Amino acid sequence: MSETYVGIDLGGTNIKLGCFDSNLNLLGKTSVATEADSGPAAVVDKMLESVKGLLAEAGRSLSDLSAAGVGTPGPAKYGEGIIIASPNLPLFKNVPLKKMLSEGLGAPVILDNDANAACWGEYVAGAGKDVNDMVFFTLGTGIGGGIVSGGKLVHGCDGNAAELGHIIIYPDGRKCGCGQKGCAEAYASANSTAKRATEAIQDGAESGLKKVLAKKGEITSKNLYEHLAKGDKLAKQITEETANALALLCVNILHATAPARIVFSGGMIAAGDALLQRIRHYFNEYIWKLKKETVEICFSTLGEDAGIIGAAAIAAQWKNNT
Amino acid sequence: MSETYVGIDLGGTNIKLGCFDSNLNLLGKTSVATEADSGPAAVVDKMLESVKGLLAEAGRSLSDLSAAGVGTPGPAKYGEGIIIASPNLPLFKNVPLKKMLSEGLGAPVILDNDANAACWGEYVAGAGKDVNDMVFFTLGTGIGGGIVSGGKLVHGCDGNAAELGHIIIYPDGRKCGCGQKGCAEAYASANSTAKRATEAIQDGAESGLKKVLAKKGEITSKNLYEHLAKGDKLAKQITEETANALALLCVNILHATAPARIVFSGGMIAAGDALLQRIRHYFNEYIWKLKKETVEICFSTLGEDAGIIGAAAIAAQWKNNT
Repeated sequence: MSETYVGIDLGGTNIKLGCFDSNLNLLGKTSVATEADSGPAAVVDKMLESVKGLLAEAGRSLSDLSAAGVGTPGPAKYGEGIIIASPNLPLFKNVPLKKMLSEGLGAPVILDNDANAACWGEYVAGAGKDVNDMVFFTLGTGIGGGIVSGGKLVHGCDGNAAELGHIIIYPDGRKCGCGQKGCAEAYASANSTAKRATEAIQDGAESGLKKVLAKKGEITSKNLYEHLAKGDKLAKQITEETANALALLCVNILHATAPARIVFSGGMIAAGDALLQRIRHYFNEYIWKLKKETVEICFSTLGEDAGIIGAAAIAAQWKNNT
Repeated sequence: MSETYVGIDLGGTNIKLGCFDSNLNLLGKTSVATEADSGPAAVVDKMLESVKGLLAEAGRSLSDLSAAGVGTPGPAKYGEGIIIASPNLPLFKNVPLKKMLSEGLGAPVILDNDANAACWGEYVAGAGKDVNDMVFFTLGTGIGGGIVSGGKLVHGCDGNAAELGHIIIYPDGRKCGCGQKGCAEAYASANSTAKRATEAIQDGAESGLKKVLAKKGEITSKNLYEHLAKGDKLAKQITEETANALALLCVNILHATAPARIVFSGGMIAAGDALLQRIRHYFNEYIWKLKKETVEICFSTLGEDAGIIGAAAIAAQWKNNT
């Protein structure tokens, strides 16, 4: 038997899967459409087939599988391995994913939050691999988060720690999808950033993005950053507001867990230095001067692989501790 | 030799000291004026004399001392045991407190942040003793904080984690002593709460506190809560604002570290249920409804002893791990 680990990143649109050896070297990876509308049983079948395919391609079999890790959207009962509910997996209500997968694979399965898994991936193999304390943000549809403290993921009492997008940065501010007002996610996710641009144009702002909106009926964060690169004034203003919100989030999480590094990932980091430099700028404006803060604010280095690497690493860590 | 631990809580006004057996039963405690103006050497001498006195009263001697723990105001290099600077200990600049004390005691000395020590005291012996994940706030001159995650204190990369009073809850809000704007501490510490009452009266608000201000030249949080109990309208309004700020802090720290319990301590909890119920009220208004949050928001149970118990427990834990 060759010790083998599988990492799975279960998203509303795609399932990403990776197969790793005992040193977490990638043996092969794949991505399949989730087709969440087909329901939990069909999605689990698809995951099982994909794992078997990956193992076969790597010259391994199910009997080589030491453990599998899965990053899933929350909220969930991670210990029991049950997905409670998820906006992006509408048919998943109290689904015992861990049980279903481990029976199908004949191997232990560990569940964790998807952002935690990506955070752990960056921690063990990416932007955080040389520190002990790190905070991780994904800027996508929403804002996900992960916290590593003293070399360990922070899970909290119910596994739902590090919901960092729902830290309230502007009380009584914009309504968030979660029901709260003024969450960071309502300002600075890729989707909220694009939405603020749309609203500004609807309110009469001048911008090259006006044509995009008229033609496509929507503006994406990608459109926004293409226009930012061209010097569009509205795109610049929207980016400043996003950077400002993310800087407040950085100040607040610094005072909570004192990370050595804060790592941003997700679709929106495609904006590059134009975004990163402005986050750093506002952070330096907001942060106290009582002591010099040395936290590094940077981008992730593993891209979309962070989730599968982290999930496999969580599985391997679990295996090594048992 | 009877295994003995000492816990010290070094404050700007008083030094509290406690002597404990190996099960952390209190053998004796004392409190002496810090007289910080006398300088670090004199303060250390006073600490050494007090420890010797406590040990003698408990029928023990320096040779029985297994280790001593000290909670000190930050910022400090806790690992090295050096106090960098402290607003309340103005002559303490880069003072190697750990070295000075351990040489004088002939025993190992462990330094931690004063709020961390009190947090750990409540965790091992007080309001948090039956949970694994807890957040702790002291509402005094400022707002101190402590975080226990998975049964361990969160220290961060430099020992300065859990500076929870400096989480920004109202961007561009009131100026905080730390230099930032809109910190929780600028609204909801005992001092800031009293200060807001003073300002309101200076701005023309009607209140029974007006007489207190005229007579004494200042309003304390104690005055405020005495008037709150009497139904004073301004005292009620100021308390609502404090509860509102603390509720925002609770929402934000819940989304960061998901504690099972949030514990408030410090002078201001003398306000009692009139404050606690309003914090809970605003927390329930602000928090998302995506999932039911079961966090308990409560008051500390150890009072002023939390710091010495926690410091001794930190020393005992260190000893048991070496």
